[in-house]
Amino acid sequence: MTQLSIETNRLQEAIDINRIQRRLDDLWEIGRTSAGGVSRLAYSETENEAHEYLRKELPAEYDVRIDSVGNMFATRWPDASQTILTGSHLDSVHNAGRLDGTLGTVISLEAIEAYNAVVDEPCCPPTLAVFRAEESARFGYHTIGSRSALSELDAQTLSATDEKGIPVWQAMNDAGFYPGDLSEPTIDIDATMGFLEVHIEQGRLLDEKATNVGVVSSIRAPVRYRVCVEGNFDHSGATPMDLRKDALAAASEMICEIEAVATANTVDGDIVATVGDLTAVNGAINTVCGTVEFPLDIRSTDSAFRAEVEREILAELEAIANRRGVTVTSELIDESEPVALSKTVQTQLIESAEAAESTYQTLPSGGGHDAMNFQLAGIPTGLLFVPSIDGISHNPDERTPEEAINEATRTLVYALNRVSNSYGNN
Amino acid sequence: MTQLSIETNRLQEAIDINRIQRRLDDLWEIGRTSAGGVSRLAYSETENEAHEYLRKELPAEYDVRIDSVGNMFATRWPDASQTILTGSHLDSVHNAGRLDGTLGTVISLEAIEAYNAVVDEPCCPPTLAVFRAEESARFGYHTIGSRSALSELDAQTLSATDEKGIPVWQAMNDAGFYPGDLSEPTIDIDATMGFLEVHIEQGRLLDEKATNVGVVSSIRAPVRYRVCVEGNFDHSGATPMDLRKDALAAASEMICEIEAVATANTVDGDIVATVGDLTAVNGAINTVCGTVEFPLDIRSTDSAFRAEVEREILAELEAIANRRGVTVTSELIDESEPVALSKTVQTQLIESAEAAESTYQTLPSGGGHDAMNFQLAGIPTGLLFVPSIDGISHNPDERTPEEAINEATRTLVYALNRVSNSYGNN
Repeated sequence: MTQLSIETNRLQEAIDINRIQRRLDDLWEIGRTSAGGVSRLAYSETENEAHEYLRKELPAEYDVRIDSVGNMFATRWPDASQTILTGSHLDSVHNAGRLDGTLGTVISLEAIEAYNAVVDEPCCPPTLAVFRAEESARFGYHTIGSRSALSELDAQTLSATDEKGIPVWQAMNDAGFYPGDLSEPTIDIDATMGFLEVHIEQGRLLDEKATNVGVVSSIRAPVRYRVCVEGNFDHSGATPMDLRKDALAAASEMICEIEAVATANTVDGDIVATVGDLTAVNGAINTVCGTVEFPLDIRSTDSAFRAEVEREILAELEAIANRRGVTVTSELIDESEPVALSKTVQTQLIESAEAAESTYQTLPSGGGHDAMNFQLAGIPTGLLFVPSIDGISHNPDERTPEEAINEATRTLVYALNRVSNSYGNN
Repeated sequence: MTQLSIETNRLQEAIDINRIQRRLDDLWEIGRTSAGGVSRLAYSETENEAHEYLRKELPAEYDVRIDSVGNMFATRWPDASQTILTGSHLDSVHNAGRLDGTLGTVISLEAIEAYNAVVDEPCCPPTLAVFRAEESARFGYHTIGSRSALSELDAQTLSATDEKGIPVWQAMNDAGFYPGDLSEPTIDIDATMGFLEVHIEQGRLLDEKATNVGVVSSIRAPVRYRVCVEGNFDHSGATPMDLRKDALAAASEMICEIEAVATANTVDGDIVATVGDLTAVNGAINTVCGTVEFPLDIRSTDSAFRAEVEREILAELEAIANRRGVTVTSELIDESEPVALSKTVQTQLIESAEAAESTYQTLPSGGGHDAMNFQLAGIPTGLLFVPSIDGISHNPDERTPEEAINEATRTLVYALNRVSNSYGNN
C-alpha cells in the first residue's frame, strides 16, 4: 500500500540540517588542502576514505553493495523488486570546493532517512548511489563510475592514463577493485525506475535570482576544439604594424568574434562559447608573437543549434586568419551530445518543490553530471540544483545557503515519494 | 696629410669575405647550442672566450686595452690624439642567432684592416671597440659595457641580479674585471670623434625592399606596461554570455584596440605597439577566465608622439574595462627616451653607401644598441644595418646575405674615411 501524502511537520523534524553540516565538515577533512579546499582525485586514497566515511555513517540496517569499479549502492530495502537511485559522487578536482558532488551525496542520504521516517511502505524504495570518478581532473574523462555501472564505459576511457602514466584500470585495481566484464551493467537497469541527483549549480542563475532550488531541464554538452594560430615571430620594435603577422592579435580578434557570435545567437540564456585559456608560445614583451594556441568550448542544450553556431564560429576564425595572412587550424577534441532530462520527472520535481514550499526555477545544466548517463540509458532522471553563491565552482570558495540545502532536501523527499507513487499507481 | 679618396679596386681586394665568414663560423662554435644557435650571456665564460678569440685574430701590431668592466679597445694607432670608435658586442641572448653583435664586430675589424690597407696617414684613425653585456637577457638591463665606458651606468644596473642572484658587479669580478670608479668614463670622450656600429636590422624593412644597407636615422625607445585585467572566474557551461565578466575576452578586445590605435597613428612606419605575451591565470578549457596579464610595449622615434599614442591606448583600455564591468590596472615598468642619431653622420653614411655602390635606405632602429649611448654622450654616432632575412632576430635562424655583408663593410671603410676627413679638414 502506497502512502500518497507526507506530513510536512514530521518531514521537517526528520531532516537534520546540523547532521548534514557535520557530514560536510567531516568530509572536508578528507583531502583538505592548505588553501581550504579539498583534493580527492578519482580512485585516490582520499576518495576511498570518503567512501569509507560515508559507509560508517549509514544506519546499521543498510544493505551495502560495492560494484566492480567501486561504486557504492546502499539501501534499507534490499529485497524490493524496484528501486529509485539517488546520490552523486565524492571525488573532486584538484583543490576543489567542499560541495561539488559531496553535498548531493549527503543530501541524498538525509532525504532517504527522512523519507524512511515519514513513509511507511514505499512501493519503489530508494537506494543511495555514490559513484566513483565523476570528475575528469585525473584521467581527462568524466563520470567513469556511472558509465561503468550502466555498461557505457569505452576502452579508450578504461585505458586513459593520469599524469604519472597510470591507466584507469590500474588505478581501479590499486584502489581495491577488479573491473570484470564491463559490457554488463553493474546495476539492474530494468529494476531501476529512476535516478535523482542533487548538485550545486556551478553557475550564477539561481544566485542571481535568489532561488533555492533549480529543476534542470537538460544538460548542455560541449563540442571542443584546440585552435592554433600561426603568424610570424618578429622584433616588436623593428617591425612596422603593416608588416606584422601577429598571431596574438589574430587570436584576440578571434576570441572577440567567438564571444560576439555566441552572444548574438543566445536564446533564453542558451548557447555559450568560451575561450578559457590561451598560450602565447615563446611569448615575450619585445616580440611579435608568432604562435598562439587556445581551447574553444561551445555548449548548448540543442545539438543542431550548437552545430549551427559551431559552423558560424569556425567560418569566422578562417575569415579572420585569411584577412590577416595568418593560418588557423582547429582540431576537434571532444563532441558530446546534449541530454534532455525526463519531462515527467521535471514535472514531478516542480510539484515536489511546490509541496516542499521551496522557491524554484527551471534551468539548463552547463556541466556534465552522472545524471546524464542515466537519462541516456533510458532511466527517467531528474537533476536538482542548489545555488552556487557568486557562481563559484571547482574552487575552495564554493558555498550554498543553508536554507537552500534544507529546501532541496525536502524537495528530494517529496520527489522520491512522487516517483515511487507513479510506479506504485501504475 | 689626409687621403681624400679610396681606390675602389684596392678596397675590394683588401676586404676578404671568406675571412669574415671564417670568423663568424669560429665564433659560432663558442657557446653553440644544440639548436644551432649560440648562448654567450653577458660576463659568462663564453663571452670571455669570444673576446679572447677576437684578440688573437688581431694583427700583432695592435695595441689592446681592456677597461675595468672588460670592454676591449684595439688600435694600430695608439698614439693618435683623436680616434673614431667602431664595433659592437659579442654577448648574446639565450640560444641566439650567430649574427647579432658578432657580425658588426667582425665587420668593424675587417673594415679597419681594409682602411689601413688603402689609406696611408689617417688624421683620425679608427679603434675597434668590443663592448660587454649589450643584451639584457642575463640581468634585465641592456648595454652595460658601453654605458660603463661612458660613465652612464647607474647603481640600479650595477647591482641588478641574474636568475641565480648574482649581481652585475660580482659577475664582472668573476669574469676577471674589477670595476673601479664608474663615475669616470673608461674612454677619452673628448678624443672620441665618432662611433660607427654595424648591426643586423632585426626587422623586415631591408629584406622586404631587397636593400643591402640601412642608414639608421633614430633609435626607437619603448614605454612598457604590465597590464592586469580582472573579471570573474565562472563555469564555461553554466554561465550565460550576459552574466560573464570574462577577463580573457576583455583582454582580447584590448589587444585588438592596441593594434588598431597604433596602426591608425602610423606615420612613415613609425609608432609600433605590441602585446607579445599573455598569461591566462588558472586558465582552463571549461572555465571563464577571471584574471589575465599581458605586457604592453609602445615604441616610437619621437617621445611626444609616443606619449600621445600611449595616452590614447591607456584611455581605450579603461573604456573597454568599464564597458565590460571588469577592472584593468596598467603598471609602468620601463620608459626610455628615443635617440635621434647625428644628421651629419647620417649624411656621411649615405655618401659612403653611394661611394661603395651599395643599395641603401634610411630607416629607424626598433631595438636599442650601444650606438644610442654614444649619441646620448654627445659623440657623433652612426648606425648601419644589414638585412635580417625574414626579419628573424634573437633566433638561431638569423641570416644576412653575403653581398650585404660585403657592401656594409665597404660602406664602413668609406665612412671611417669620411668622418676622419671631416675632422682632418677642420
